[in-house]
Amino acid sequence: MSASDLTIEVPSGFLFSAIAAGIKPSGRPDLACVRIPGGASAAAVFTTNRVVAAPLEVDREHLKRSRGRVSFLIVNAGNANCATGAAGRRDCERVCREAARLLKAGAERVFPSSTGVIGVPLPAEKIVRALPELIAAQAASEQAAEGFARAIMTTDTRPKIVSRRVRAGSGSFALLGIAKGAGMIHPNLATMLVYLFTDVEANSRELQPLLHAACDDSFNCISVDGDTSTNDTVLLLASSGSGVSLRAPGVRAKFTQALNEVCKELALQIISDGEGVKHVIRLRIEQARDRKEAMQIARTIAHSPLVKTAWAGADPNWGRILAAAGRSGVPLDPGRINIFFGDLQVCREGVAAEFDEREAHAYLTQPQYEVRVQLGRGRTSLDFLTCDLTTDYVHINADYTT
Amino acid sequence: MSASDLTIEVPSGFLFSAIAAGIKPSGRPDLACVRIPGGASAAAVFTTNRVVAAPLEVDREHLKRSRGRVSFLIVNAGNANCATGAAGRRDCERVCREAARLLKAGAERVFPSSTGVIGVPLPAEKIVRALPELIAAQAASEQAAEGFARAIMTTDTRPKIVSRRVRAGSGSFALLGIAKGAGMIHPNLATMLVYLFTDVEANSRELQPLLHAACDDSFNCISVDGDTSTNDTVLLLASSGSGVSLRAPGVRAKFTQALNEVCKELALQIISDGEGVKHVIRLRIEQARDRKEAMQIARTIAHSPLVKTAWAGADPNWGRILAAAGRSGVPLDPGRINIFFGDLQVCREGVAAEFDEREAHAYLTQPQYEVRVQLGRGRTSLDFLTCDLTTDYVHINADYTT
Repeated sequence: MSASDLTIEVPSGFLFSAIAAGIKPSGRPDLACVRIPGGASAAAVFTTNRVVAAPLEVDREHLKRSRGRVSFLIVNAGNANCATGAAGRRDCERVCREAARLLKAGAERVFPSSTGVIGVPLPAEKIVRALPELIAAQAASEQAAEGFARAIMTTDTRPKIVSRRVRAGSGSFALLGIAKGAGMIHPNLATMLVYLFTDVEANSRELQPLLHAACDDSFNCISVDGDTSTNDTVLLLASSGSGVSLRAPGVRAKFTQALNEVCKELALQIISDGEGVKHVIRLRIEQARDRKEAMQIARTIAHSPLVKTAWAGADPNWGRILAAAGRSGVPLDPGRINIFFGDLQVCREGVAAEFDEREAHAYLTQPQYEVRVQLGRGRTSLDFLTCDLTTDYVHINADYTT
Repeated sequence: MSASDLTIEVPSGFLFSAIAAGIKPSGRPDLACVRIPGGASAAAVFTTNRVVAAPLEVDREHLKRSRGRVSFLIVNAGNANCATGAAGRRDCERVCREAARLLKAGAERVFPSSTGVIGVPLPAEKIVRALPELIAAQAASEQAAEGFARAIMTTDTRPKIVSRRVRAGSGSFALLGIAKGAGMIHPNLATMLVYLFTDVEANSRELQPLLHAACDDSFNCISVDGDTSTNDTVLLLASSGSGVSLRAPGVRAKFTQALNEVCKELALQIISDGEGVKHVIRLRIEQARDRKEAMQIARTIAHSPLVKTAWAGADPNWGRILAAAGRSGVPLDPGRINIFFGDLQVCREGVAAEFDEREAHAYLTQPQYEVRVQLGRGRTSLDFLTCDLTTDYVHINADYTT
């Protein structure tokens, strides 16, 4: 799928642009920005990693000082500005200050993001020099939005764009999501960045819980290292350009649904574009006591090299899944566990079910399929997206690149 | 290294044998036993996995009923007797009963182990038919001990044997350790089995804490799935054949040291023989607040596909190690972290140290080396053995084998 085939719904109030500033060795576009002339209300979710890149520290401070208002988003790819110490922080602040000066706005209204190599100084000079051209190129077009999506890519093989237009009363609002994936988890480039733009009218306090909930069911349910890299950021910006208020009757429910859908679709695009990925697996944990234990089991299964390599070979080896669940730390009764590949039951109450291995193997050769694990402990279900672990993945990541 | 080059110290009171019973498809020896005519005091450590193979359930019950006395150890390779339900339990008990009948001992004196494929019924009939020949072949020789070590192998490329003779007063005692590794973590064959034989005189209650402590510093500090497979077992048997008592002056200290050394050497052999392993890494966590957080960080780093693939490529990418530590859940201050490859410092206080990348790359091409991570939080150190993740590993594990 080429992003060019898509109709991109661009919410009003946002201007996009991207250029090549010489940060990526490839010479491709690597500096992108979004300007919101009227300002936007912001909600954000950041990585939980203790090692945090400089821009995330700056973002947190700026959002606090601006009370959740953003006028300018600037993203560079090719350098994560992480593990760069006090100099990294100063470099990031310098870029923000320069952008603010050009835009005649407060620096606290600038939201910086970086993705790329860790431990290498940010080429702040290159970025600062490129800012006037970058800002001059801004447009509200679909092409400009796609250009933004392409410029923030690192190991992604395709841009990740999902958009919706939602009717509400006599008007409508748009929601546009743009993401860069974590490859599978790439050498120095493990970051997941997600930007969600809407022209609904809402304040920062109203948006934050909606964004948290949407992330929980999407980006927190995929097994890239995404949720734990040093730069991960999900940012939601609302420009109010549509004139449709979140507080108007029925709008909150519609917006919440659109936000959840867009986040889930972006999450699926991120997993599908993982490095070396041949199979995308929807891992469904059923009959858990609560969401916490379902998540614990899903993650243990999804992170098991044993399970992931079996999936790479379309091997219907349910024993590995059972053993991974067994070591998850949840006090399971193995005698109550059922495992299904699609509709085909392969494990019944902890022991082998009678099944046709060739049928199971054929099912697992599909590019996308479902694995269900029933725990017999409760009523909670969880969907978790994951992928296989292939020799391509090792090749990509084992190459001596530094 | 061929085990045949070794002098194996065989402790008195133990008779070994092994034969091919037709369980392994290869036709190689796959059934092994150790007989202790005078009986032995036993201490054992089992997997913490909730999914537990039938023999481990039987072992726990037998040790309880026999009050920690074992007369016969029987191990089959090629079938794990796991996820086999009530039938698996009955099959295991039948084998024990038959062995007990032939040896004229109580069934509770038999200690069974299985390793191999999960979810396939144990070929109990084959094992029972082979028992008379197996028992008849028993000998106290080095060759017989080595035969035992070879028969319990699954994906291991070489037998794992470590032995010591220790002088104590006017006499001496021997300690012989035999292990099968977990490959790296193999399709259906993930089990680590370790048997430690000594002719020191000690009871089960005295041995158990010594075994626990020895395991903590060896088998619990290696990053195979070893500590979490369904069949993992470490068994220590003391025959008292040496006449040297653990309670005699100085013996406990000598025995403890020998036990720790033998366990550490076996752990190193297991890691070195991992599937597709090209590099063995001694990961040293320093300046932790306590052992628990040191272990948590060591495991997060050692289990990170990102870090393991960098090691496969001899890539001096310290950023991945820093990022893994950062997501370990320990509340680290990244600004206090130092990372060393051998004596070469690559990260100083969370940022890049000046170092020669070619020198670092050369260091990481060695088959065995040290990575040190200093946390700046306390005084606790931990040594953890781990390995790289290579394309060979994926090949071995992704093949459609069922």
